[in-house]
Amino acid sequence: MAISVETFFLSPDNQGTLQAQIQQMIAEGILSGRFRKGEKLPSSRRLASHLGVSRITVTLAYTELLANDYLTSRGRSGYFVSNNAPVPPSFTPPQKGEETVDWTRAIGRRFTGGNMMNKPHDWASYRYPFVYGQTDPSLFDHSNWRLCALQALGQKDFSALTADYYDQDDPRLVEFIARNTLPRRGIIARPEEILITLGAQNALWIAAQILLTQRRVAAIEDPCYYALREILEQSRCHVTPVPVDRDGLRPDAIPDESDVIFTTPSHQCPTTATMPMARRHALLERARDIDALIVEDDYEFEMSFLDAPSPALKSLDTDGRVIYVGSFSKSLFPGLRLGYLVGSESFIREARALRASVLRHPPGHIQRTAAYFLSLGHYDALIRRIREALKQRRAVMQTAIDAHGLRVSGKGVFGGSSFWMQAPDGSNTDDIATQLRAQSVLIEPGHHFFHGPDQPTNFYRLGYSSIPATRIPDGVARIAEAFRS
Amino acid sequence: MAISVETFFLSPDNQGTLQAQIQQMIAEGILSGRFRKGEKLPSSRRLASHLGVSRITVTLAYTELLANDYLTSRGRSGYFVSNNAPVPPSFTPPQKGEETVDWTRAIGRRFTGGNMMNKPHDWASYRYPFVYGQTDPSLFDHSNWRLCALQALGQKDFSALTADYYDQDDPRLVEFIARNTLPRRGIIARPEEILITLGAQNALWIAAQILLTQRRVAAIEDPCYYALREILEQSRCHVTPVPVDRDGLRPDAIPDESDVIFTTPSHQCPTTATMPMARRHALLERARDIDALIVEDDYEFEMSFLDAPSPALKSLDTDGRVIYVGSFSKSLFPGLRLGYLVGSESFIREARALRASVLRHPPGHIQRTAAYFLSLGHYDALIRRIREALKQRRAVMQTAIDAHGLRVSGKGVFGGSSFWMQAPDGSNTDDIATQLRAQSVLIEPGHHFFHGPDQPTNFYRLGYSSIPATRIPDGVARIAEAFRS
Repeated sequence: MAISVETFFLSPDNQGTLQAQIQQMIAEGILSGRFRKGEKLPSSRRLASHLGVSRITVTLAYTELLANDYLTSRGRSGYFVSNNAPVPPSFTPPQKGEETVDWTRAIGRRFTGGNMMNKPHDWASYRYPFVYGQTDPSLFDHSNWRLCALQALGQKDFSALTADYYDQDDPRLVEFIARNTLPRRGIIARPEEILITLGAQNALWIAAQILLTQRRVAAIEDPCYYALREILEQSRCHVTPVPVDRDGLRPDAIPDESDVIFTTPSHQCPTTATMPMARRHALLERARDIDALIVEDDYEFEMSFLDAPSPALKSLDTDGRVIYVGSFSKSLFPGLRLGYLVGSESFIREARALRASVLRHPPGHIQRTAAYFLSLGHYDALIRRIREALKQRRAVMQTAIDAHGLRVSGKGVFGGSSFWMQAPDGSNTDDIATQLRAQSVLIEPGHHFFHGPDQPTNFYRLGYSSIPATRIPDGVARIAEAFRS
Repeated sequence: MAISVETFFLSPDNQGTLQAQIQQMIAEGILSGRFRKGEKLPSSRRLASHLGVSRITVTLAYTELLANDYLTSRGRSGYFVSNNAPVPPSFTPPQKGEETVDWTRAIGRRFTGGNMMNKPHDWASYRYPFVYGQTDPSLFDHSNWRLCALQALGQKDFSALTADYYDQDDPRLVEFIARNTLPRRGIIARPEEILITLGAQNALWIAAQILLTQRRVAAIEDPCYYALREILEQSRCHVTPVPVDRDGLRPDAIPDESDVIFTTPSHQCPTTATMPMARRHALLERARDIDALIVEDDYEFEMSFLDAPSPALKSLDTDGRVIYVGSFSKSLFPGLRLGYLVGSESFIREARALRASVLRHPPGHIQRTAAYFLSLGHYDALIRRIREALKQRRAVMQTAIDAHGLRVSGKGVFGGSSFWMQAPDGSNTDDIATQLRAQSVLIEPGHHFFHGPDQPTNFYRLGYSSIPATRIPDGVARIAEAFRS
């Protein structure tokens, strides 16, 4: 039996090289049972002409499939589906009935219901994406990242990538963070005081599990990062929101009964306020007085371009009271899922054990690639490039915002990648955001950052990390127009 | 000021190309403050001769550092530390005092105390490593993995790798699992019924969080995978151990009050027993009768080489009662941290929300690389190669075990990668393991697989996935000798 050349089809949506696409198409045909053992494939010339590709491309795909034992060749008579090719299962799965499990009862704990999904996945296809926290492909150093990934995939590093580390991290990455990243924030830490996490989200989650129970009180900033509020609600501790002012969290407003204080002193999230030094000292003092711990989320310290970054709260901490959360999501990219926790050894030991139970460790290849990228100096070059771009975009933003009389509610001292905006009283930024979306403009409504049932509806965030400077004036004009009408 | 060439030193332990090492050495010198702005670097000829490398290597390193703005060049007068080079922090961190935090009180929940760490990290340096669950570099298809990783790093896939997926997975990987992996186990599932996890450990952990509470009962196999017991103990549910026999878990021994049954029907862990079809049906029946859910951990189904794999429990499930846990750790490598959950949409929805809160999603690059490796047919070729090697090693194991009169307690029907061994009554395999380690032999004592305080001490596991066949006879001889004396 020969397989008809007509059944071969390259979808224009496919990704990968043409050779890979052909290879994949044949492998899938065999795996799904469409192509049977012993069946003859079209000649490479025929298939090439049918698909409109060069003959060598088809030949290379066939050769690869030969090596993988999907195909055999019989001298000059061509290629056939191999007798050793993988087979679809011989048993037929039973028809699925109606599910009889009562999931309302079977689910012991629910985790759905959060409001994380307020950014469209296809944000990159919008013309004016004032989104926050995504990567700008035009700034990222793609070629050096690729080289580092390749180096990390080399034979020498192979066991570092493949082995089960149990509860350990890549020592090279930890060493770089200890010797080069943390000192820039004034933090001195030994490797035993550092844990690599699957992004800052994972770091905050781990800290909450260890430090909070149903009987403990977490003080959070209001407004604050909504995903943190979800983490805390799931941990079932008591959550006390503490209003922030233009300098960030107010130490005197933190209730006495707080056990753990979550704060973002570098760039308050979402207001972008930077906490002055005096207040940082006061915050540490306050924590000492009530014997509370502090979780410091320093999620975008590298994005300081207006002024040098001030020392982290952690660097001022002589008690071991501060747990520091760092992230590479803003400076490299969020899909990397790489962050870290810095804290006392007693804390990190528990965090390590919990991480081991939940997920063992972040994938070795990711850790090693980042270690190379950092240690070869590419990271610093990238950060500098991002800073320059953000600085320029911010100036354009400021001009456009002023020109249209929009009101900035918070913009930080050191830079960052967003403005926190206040619309006139009575506006609903959720509605405005929906209207703007139809005009290819994305803004982030601010209500979900606030605590409690009476969330103000007239705030919004404008990120400029993913929008080219040239589009900013037009985009801001549309936003201003939407608020006017 | 010129930087003395004497301060440059290439450690023989370093990894990476010579160019990368030189680049890294200079970047670190600058970052740590040893090299200051404006200081002159040795000429490329001098540094090359000092380090004993070719001049072009040094020139390439300098050029790269120039591009990254660590260095500047001033015409013919050479290379200097750039004025734009990153600076070490200007503030001096305060001297650390004695920590005053009382961690005994501050830690709300403890996670340490498990016994996961019974394999030495340097197992690969032992001559006779009868360890379980690690990769054999001699079998892995390193070059194709590397090619797939490269493809996944290409410009086209860039946004798939870098974007924050929030709670989503790589659709290509999910599709491959749905269309090609699960059908081989007789499982038909839609993408909404599949969640990618950070390894099987993460899948089991997620299932336990959602299905169990302090008021619910988990039935587990005894003996069972010790990390599962830790997960359940942390979830604070009631745990009922159910003894296994040579056919695995006994349905009639499962207590009526069980809410969730954890089982490993393909290869019982650690006894390797394969559950016969009749018992699988009986188990489903029993679960239906007591309205319990089943979590099926199918951790090494691809390792079937003695007989075709039987359908998964999940494939026989018409109620939606079975949650299936799959893993790529055994077939690709454990450092990859890639597994998946298959279950009813209601369950997967909660699992997805929990995963988003804990870690968002497994890194995009890892998912995409695996998707390519699978869909191009490399995975199947790899599995075939591993199966052949394991089959051969198993035969050598069997011969050696028989020759030395060691007693096999369980060895499965389909193959797998280990023997479950029983030593004479009164032996302590922990002690023997320590003795053998001194002779470069690693075996895994079996007591930690058992539940409760009276763990039998005379079982052990012999894995053969990471030891070459040629070393097996000698290794088994040493084990036999240790038990005799």
